[in-house]
Amino acid sequence: MTISRGFPAAEFEARLENAQRRMAAAGLDLLLLTTEPDVRYFSGFLTQFWQSPTRPWFLLVPAKGKPVAVIPGIGAPAMARTWIEDIRTWSSPNPEDEGLSLLAETVRELAGETARIGLPSGPETHLRLPLAEYDRLRAMLPDATFRDDAGIVRALRIVKSEAEIAKIAAACDLVSGVFEDWFGWLAPGMSEQEIFRRFKIACLEAGADDVSYLVGGAGSGGYGDIISPPSERKVRDGDVLILDTGTLLDGYFCDFDRNYAIGAPSEAVAAAYRTVYAATEAGLAAARPGATCADLFRAMADVLSSDGAAAGNVGRIGHGLGTVLTEWPSITADDKTELVPGMVMTLEPGLEYAPGKMMVHEENIVIRADGAELLTRRAPGEIPVVR
Amino acid sequence: MTISRGFPAAEFEARLENAQRRMAAAGLDLLLLTTEPDVRYFSGFLTQFWQSPTRPWFLLVPAKGKPVAVIPGIGAPAMARTWIEDIRTWSSPNPEDEGLSLLAETVRELAGETARIGLPSGPETHLRLPLAEYDRLRAMLPDATFRDDAGIVRALRIVKSEAEIAKIAAACDLVSGVFEDWFGWLAPGMSEQEIFRRFKIACLEAGADDVSYLVGGAGSGGYGDIISPPSERKVRDGDVLILDTGTLLDGYFCDFDRNYAIGAPSEAVAAAYRTVYAATEAGLAAARPGATCADLFRAMADVLSSDGAAAGNVGRIGHGLGTVLTEWPSITADDKTELVPGMVMTLEPGLEYAPGKMMVHEENIVIRADGAELLTRRAPGEIPVVR
Repeated sequence: MTISRGFPAAEFEARLENAQRRMAAAGLDLLLLTTEPDVRYFSGFLTQFWQSPTRPWFLLVPAKGKPVAVIPGIGAPAMARTWIEDIRTWSSPNPEDEGLSLLAETVRELAGETARIGLPSGPETHLRLPLAEYDRLRAMLPDATFRDDAGIVRALRIVKSEAEIAKIAAACDLVSGVFEDWFGWLAPGMSEQEIFRRFKIACLEAGADDVSYLVGGAGSGGYGDIISPPSERKVRDGDVLILDTGTLLDGYFCDFDRNYAIGAPSEAVAAAYRTVYAATEAGLAAARPGATCADLFRAMADVLSSDGAAAGNVGRIGHGLGTVLTEWPSITADDKTELVPGMVMTLEPGLEYAPGKMMVHEENIVIRADGAELLTRRAPGEIPVVR
Repeated sequence: MTISRGFPAAEFEARLENAQRRMAAAGLDLLLLTTEPDVRYFSGFLTQFWQSPTRPWFLLVPAKGKPVAVIPGIGAPAMARTWIEDIRTWSSPNPEDEGLSLLAETVRELAGETARIGLPSGPETHLRLPLAEYDRLRAMLPDATFRDDAGIVRALRIVKSEAEIAKIAAACDLVSGVFEDWFGWLAPGMSEQEIFRRFKIACLEAGADDVSYLVGGAGSGGYGDIISPPSERKVRDGDVLILDTGTLLDGYFCDFDRNYAIGAPSEAVAAAYRTVYAATEAGLAAARPGATCADLFRAMADVLSSDGAAAGNVGRIGHGLGTVLTEWPSITADDKTELVPGMVMTLEPGLEYAPGKMMVHEENIVIRADGAELLTRRAPGEIPVVR
């Protein structure tokens, strides 16, 4: 699959302008970003090197002008290929001064001693910096204010640009094809481990960059757990198999699942599948600008409960996605986030149709002015049977 | 590749006993763990679901008795299959009370209102919890003390058990074979993206669970950046290609690289390769119990500088590895960590032999009573040539 890699500078200019407008309204002089998705959002810096926790990375978004990167020297060549121009580095690792004095100096230069610094602090965020280092940083900037980013990063990242949507759509399309061509990698008698491996290879062959996330499994008459790694157990007649994948293309995820019956499904399995399929249909109809996540939840939950089934223990039936496998918002009974065009989401209704037997369905959509647009190719209306 | 999955309960009992002995000495009533490697270390809980940042997960290690899991309901079935018995769950996501009241209640039950709680806070750690939630938790436990874990988690995780070493060794062995069979996946004229994809498929075919980390690339006469994703550029005669992979087997990483010359290498390339090879030999000889990381650094750096070459900007020439791609310690000029048997490490000497041209070599070892034992199969003494 050939896609256009990266983004033009205009994409980052728009993100920056949007952030700076909100920073002015919130009374923030700087955003201090420390995590992979946040740094990448404003810089385009894409590397798997974040898996190494040794070194902190910082991106400062000032009130005016382009973001400034304060990063370990090892990252300089790659950062220099982004649209970021002001790149300051220290020789790392250096536990005595792991970039903090350089960061503090840059903060003072950009916003003075009394800088009002916003850090993403709300749900689904974390500070990618040791607690002791965060204490040290605050001590180095005693007159600065460290506070929440006023939800600015969430507000920006939750609505995708057309260029972002195109990447997610390409990932969805690629994986939809792999799921549809299941006969290329799935057969009764394979172990879960073998199935997972074959599926990953099929995704790579189809052009995926990485199959970062693959969970699921099989069970006789149904599965009871949807987050486990695969076992050595061989799938056999009467099993239900679920694969739920987050596959990456140019740093953007799809996130959806597919179910397969190994041999003829029981009536309970076939019916549970139809119910989650119908719940997804209700979600597709309800996912329009102006509706809230709670509305969307209710539309799907009504179908699930009409079947008399117990809700599963997943706590939500869909969520946002993008550069992270799961992002805000959550489709729950209480989430009042209003849907707006450009939000990319999963619809993920699930039910427990017998004790310890779950059925979870998932599609990916983008909210458009006139309603939901499917990014995945719709799953079949009846559970596919593998013989 | 067939390996024994997971660990017997005795492995976790030993880790717990070791932690509790150190907690008593440090005056800690509880360890509060929030990250994937730390929670897994004491529980055996293995899932890719951590990629979703929506829900916090907590494991409390008390002064006596087994760890207690305070986790989202979605994780209960998988956690119940570990050796953990006391599993408390809440329905998540629930931003109003994202597990905090259940966590606070459990803290009080285990260690009272004045609990002295240790959190990993030093280098290479982070708190996997939004800052606002951490503030909330402390407000819910006003008489408790939150402080550093006294380095206990680092002290334990830095020394591997034989069972852990066996998993890393298996990953190293598997990937060594893939690198040696390069003619199966590497040919001149392929793009970097195609090479990366073929390499990942080869690792999966050989039995790897995941190729979570693969960076590197090629450049004419040498490469200048070792952390980037692959480009669409086709490799050609005169290129030097490096692939650096962290490949997973049962939750444990190998982390090493290999270099290839596309067509006959220049004398500068061949010589740089010999230098990093020789530096690694010096590291293998110097890596013995009682030596410090600084000693190990000096042994390798002396060889690198005898060649008159500039050190690269990576800041260190090796590190620990295990459940995370890079772990403590770092092989730097100043790291005084003493090597002890059971430490698993990379030796990773690199140099810049011309402006923007790097050569980085990497092997994985375990420290034994009588010196370094290679876990990877040694790279060839001369740079392999791909024609």
